[in-house]
Amino acid sequence: MASNGNDNCNAIESIWRFKGNGATSDAAAVTLRKLIFGMFQNCDFNNGKTILPSVTHSFKTCPEAEEAVAAAVRSGMANSYAPSPGIYKARRAVVDHINGGLPNKLRPEDVYITGGCNQAIEILMDCLAGNPAANILLPRPGYPHYDARAVYSGIKIRNYDLLPERDFEIDLNGLEAAANENTVAMVLINPNNPCGNVYTYDHLNKVAEIARKLGIMVISDEVYDQVVFGDRPFVPMGIFASIAPVITLGSISKGWVVPGWRIGWIAMNDPNGILKHTGVVQAIEDCLDLVPQASFILQEALPDILEKTPKEFFDKKNKAMKRNVEISCERLKDIPCLLCPTKPESCSYLWVKLDTSMFDDIKNDFDFCSKLVSEESLVLVPGVAIGAENWVRISIGTEESELEEVFDRLKSFYGRHAAPSKEAVGYFPP
Amino acid sequence: MASNGNDNCNAIESIWRFKGNGATSDAAAVTLRKLIFGMFQNCDFNNGKTILPSVTHSFKTCPEAEEAVAAAVRSGMANSYAPSPGIYKARRAVVDHINGGLPNKLRPEDVYITGGCNQAIEILMDCLAGNPAANILLPRPGYPHYDARAVYSGIKIRNYDLLPERDFEIDLNGLEAAANENTVAMVLINPNNPCGNVYTYDHLNKVAEIARKLGIMVISDEVYDQVVFGDRPFVPMGIFASIAPVITLGSISKGWVVPGWRIGWIAMNDPNGILKHTGVVQAIEDCLDLVPQASFILQEALPDILEKTPKEFFDKKNKAMKRNVEISCERLKDIPCLLCPTKPESCSYLWVKLDTSMFDDIKNDFDFCSKLVSEESLVLVPGVAIGAENWVRISIGTEESELEEVFDRLKSFYGRHAAPSKEAVGYFPP
Repeated sequence: MASNGNDNCNAIESIWRFKGNGATSDAAAVTLRKLIFGMFQNCDFNNGKTILPSVTHSFKTCPEAEEAVAAAVRSGMANSYAPSPGIYKARRAVVDHINGGLPNKLRPEDVYITGGCNQAIEILMDCLAGNPAANILLPRPGYPHYDARAVYSGIKIRNYDLLPERDFEIDLNGLEAAANENTVAMVLINPNNPCGNVYTYDHLNKVAEIARKLGIMVISDEVYDQVVFGDRPFVPMGIFASIAPVITLGSISKGWVVPGWRIGWIAMNDPNGILKHTGVVQAIEDCLDLVPQASFILQEALPDILEKTPKEFFDKKNKAMKRNVEISCERLKDIPCLLCPTKPESCSYLWVKLDTSMFDDIKNDFDFCSKLVSEESLVLVPGVAIGAENWVRISIGTEESELEEVFDRLKSFYGRHAAPSKEAVGYFPP
Repeated sequence: MASNGNDNCNAIESIWRFKGNGATSDAAAVTLRKLIFGMFQNCDFNNGKTILPSVTHSFKTCPEAEEAVAAAVRSGMANSYAPSPGIYKARRAVVDHINGGLPNKLRPEDVYITGGCNQAIEILMDCLAGNPAANILLPRPGYPHYDARAVYSGIKIRNYDLLPERDFEIDLNGLEAAANENTVAMVLINPNNPCGNVYTYDHLNKVAEIARKLGIMVISDEVYDQVVFGDRPFVPMGIFASIAPVITLGSISKGWVVPGWRIGWIAMNDPNGILKHTGVVQAIEDCLDLVPQASFILQEALPDILEKTPKEFFDKKNKAMKRNVEISCERLKDIPCLLCPTKPESCSYLWVKLDTSMFDDIKNDFDFCSKLVSEESLVLVPGVAIGAENWVRISIGTEESELEEVFDRLKSFYGRHAAPSKEAVGYFPP
């Protein structure tokens, strides 16, 4: 009785009426998670090298934050269902945390607690998807969860560029040109991931004026606001909310180095009541009834985390980060295929241009990163995954010993692959 | 310079191009969260009565679970991003937790960690939405998050009935009749919320045979599996997975009385590889890359929560629950407008028929619950919110003193509203 796989397949199809939704694959293909965890699969676990970046050598969070969570769970006050917008004391704590920098003060009712910034992105995209032709302006390079969730919500994507030759300022003319009558919002990432720049007051003011002219809202992703170590101060976009409405996304994940804890917020900077009048507030509140909430434990702990963390924790971490940038830029001199146009002033990455002309056997950033994982167990993010071909994002938020190891491996990889006949051609003239 | 609201509205509309997505409202309107938190708004905070059910008098969780979370946060091992399907040790712990009752043992790879069972529902609905005409069979009464997320994913809803006169067994003929060629799945809630019944082995076996005949999968919501206090043992639906594929949803929220913690799982009982072959596994894995993950802290704590909680914790809690059922049924005798056809053997509710013929001034269950909240600060769930008009769900998972207070208020409310001329007409003949 012969049987083959096809017979079996046909038999299954004739019986069962369901199938998986292919739309989830289309959207998931864009996510950084899919890409990064996919690259781990290329690791050669027999080469004697630990995988980098390691989880255990990244910066540690502060004991105050840990104790806040332990106290929350032991209080017994975090066991029941939380209200969909988040518990009041957490919303009030976020307001106290961000109001200092804002001329139009927020109320707790203007803040919604989410399961991290990624969930905030998901909620906003769903809430903007009312018009089937809607499109959104996303930065290039950018954070791909915006792309993935826009695709999933049926919102079309239009990109605007960040200019490496101008400290990654937004190409303002390009921003305006990218919009059309179906554009509903723009996303701004400040401080910027992956570029590590911090936008000036004047530049953000111009962005707000353009948003007003275009009739769109600004979604300002400020998850790195506690990770600024350069000279330029962080300016919250909410300052300009009287020009165009601003929805600010925040989180403890980057500032406290706890991305796995999953708690963040959506803050509605809407002094003229435009987000309310256009139904965006209602859509967000409805959406919050439909999605999983942040753990009540983290909500209960949030006030203590925001209020009790000493300033010294951030100072020390940012100082270490600044030193890591210096070390990294110094070490890059030995690896001439990678060029960093601007020293980052925030975040925990180097965003570097890859010069593929120096290789015979590496054709692009994805190829570079794939071979690097396989040979050196070092995971970098290829620029193509975040909208810029032949760039690479290197994580440098780690202990100094690991950082040195990262560049040792990069140098070794470069040494093996560089074509001897080729000369380094800098992307930016010295 | 006169100005009115309408001018302002028109001015806003002429400038701003975005609007909130109305589809979120349509789906959110169905959710229990929207309804319950909405009913709290009707409370008269000046009537001297605390709102019931209170959060503080519900059953407490066990210290082992609290300490597991405190240890997880202090370990420093729960800070980074978790892989989308959940961390391996949490997946393995779930498998160890549920495999005992299953003939076809699951592997850790068959389990996905979610931010509670509600997120599991969201993921499944999205993954089944590939066919625009797809419909799903939902129990009536049922848990309305299934309805809300089905609406949101564009899946049509068909209901099958639970039969009060037969211990809330499924109307098997009705189940089969409700399906058509576009039916992709059925949802089974066992132990059953709101009815409190536990299905027998033979009944579940028949359900599996019908699912196979219809060519659909069974989504088995087993979040109350640790809350069984009657004589009938809980039988996991996964036992019948060789007949029809079964996706089991579980959570610690009910068993450990911590619904706010937000951690649950999806378990794929698929010994014949049908869910894999039809792309359902892939769609779920893709969807997990798109949605917020359960807090890593809870994932890290999950193995200890599942393994270290003493059996005595559940025994004590279930014994108290059984006593509460006895007390409640006894107290209902004084409130003849509410009739409980079957003593619950699981969950933490009484599901009672409301006899509106005993009132002149209360027209239905929603009216009953709304007036009750307003006059007595007592929040019950009107049956219409979970698919059954003129039924009411009463939460009884609380300390005895509070339980007595609940029935005191119900009795007082009944005494004020009962029409003196009317006689109690039992829904079920004695």
